[in-house]
Amino acid sequence: MEQITVIKIGGNVIDNAEALARFVERFAALEGPKILIHGGGKLATRLAEQMQIEVKMIEGRRITDRPTLDIVTMVYAGLVNKQIVAALQAAGCNAIGLSGADGNIVRAHRRPATPIDYGYVGDIDGVDSRLLASLLEQGLTPVFSAIMHDGEGSLLNCNADSVATAVALGAAVVAPTDLIFCFEKRGVLRDADDESSVIERITAANYTALKAEGAVKGGMIPKIENALKAVAQGVRSVRIKHADDLLREAGTTIENQ
Amino acid sequence: MEQITVIKIGGNVIDNAEALARFVERFAALEGPKILIHGGGKLATRLAEQMQIEVKMIEGRRITDRPTLDIVTMVYAGLVNKQIVAALQAAGCNAIGLSGADGNIVRAHRRPATPIDYGYVGDIDGVDSRLLASLLEQGLTPVFSAIMHDGEGSLLNCNADSVATAVALGAAVVAPTDLIFCFEKRGVLRDADDESSVIERITAANYTALKAEGAVKGGMIPKIENALKAVAQGVRSVRIKHADDLLREAGTTIENQ
Repeated sequence: MEQITVIKIGGNVIDNAEALARFVERFAALEGPKILIHGGGKLATRLAEQMQIEVKMIEGRRITDRPTLDIVTMVYAGLVNKQIVAALQAAGCNAIGLSGADGNIVRAHRRPATPIDYGYVGDIDGVDSRLLASLLEQGLTPVFSAIMHDGEGSLLNCNADSVATAVALGAAVVAPTDLIFCFEKRGVLRDADDESSVIERITAANYTALKAEGAVKGGMIPKIENALKAVAQGVRSVRIKHADDLLREAGTTIENQ
Repeated sequence: MEQITVIKIGGNVIDNAEALARFVERFAALEGPKILIHGGGKLATRLAEQMQIEVKMIEGRRITDRPTLDIVTMVYAGLVNKQIVAALQAAGCNAIGLSGADGNIVRAHRRPATPIDYGYVGDIDGVDSRLLASLLEQGLTPVFSAIMHDGEGSLLNCNADSVATAVALGAAVVAPTDLIFCFEKRGVLRDADDESSVIERITAANYTALKAEGAVKGGMIPKIENALKAVAQGVRSVRIKHADDLLREAGTTIENQ
């Protein structure tokens, strides 16, 4: 394969039926071998409310107890994943929905219970690059939810950004791989209120300065640092862009140098 | 491939955690290329109750309206499918969970709205034998829920027995295929109250007599007639047996002659 594109869409796209339909059309039109990772959206929270399952938080972070694991498995690996796959099929893209357990394609382990027991939350160990390549070579487009497994029979709720990064690293073993994070902003913005203030390029070399001057801050810091780690480990580039810009040269590009 | 075994388990096995664990162990131990189709169980009905979604029936048959379709997709294609896949992985079987939309592996169409509009209920058009064979050749074990799609973006709720029969016919193109329906009885019984009254063998030749003398009756009639059709169309044999007898020569065998 010449190159592979790995794309992650977040909950904001999934929660908006029109934005999702636009994304599906653009994703289907994207040429070459590609992989989609989707987040969850608010449906799982709404379902938990309807089922009167209490959302447990520790230090501001959600705990995945057993009833919550069942809900995210139903919503992410079931409803959201299969709806996206069916929509992609209708758009002419031969999608195949996967959790980490399917074909044991992503291996994870339950996060240690200390200092905080997050419940059925997993961290990723690795991706089966051979199976991934074989699916792509058959013309299939893998579509991942963030539900993984521990290999011992338990499903695990993982972070979709981490799944996307791990899958991109797994793909990079096979062919040059670009990872795109699609969200609701035009890229990494110098000024959060100004969509025209996109930082075009971030590398390890200019990151320290961008962070020092406050151009990269808050929730963007871990995202950029993960992206820098991914490009340092072998992903060719990471792009952060608006979902509507998928087919356009746009957004922020993070490269190794 | 020398031969393929296609196995269907019903809701009674899925609803019973111990019976399911026993089945998973036996299924994992079964040698050779194999495929699993699972029904739904009572979880979808319980979830609908919790969500206060009314079950609509027409002439005693359940209607799959949109909220019900979402529920069966969550429960069958999500929770049940991924739990079985994770359990099989733990038992050393390289399972991959599939709906019909995944890889467009099963094509279906929505049942016509006349005389009765069943809602999002589908009838199966065919199975992609090439993709099925390719997955089996990679050492993967496909695990199907009965959620299919129409190729136009809509998911469809199908009958798991029909999915099993269609998948077996699709597999039979590739290699001699045996189809096993696992349920909670020892086979087709002459006397419903006597588990030792198993009819060992049914063929087109002796079926008419068995039906005339009342040895095959009620809900067994469509099951046997579907099985006879499957063997007439190319499935090598159909077996109806207790889930606990999976690895044993037991139950009722339906053959072409």
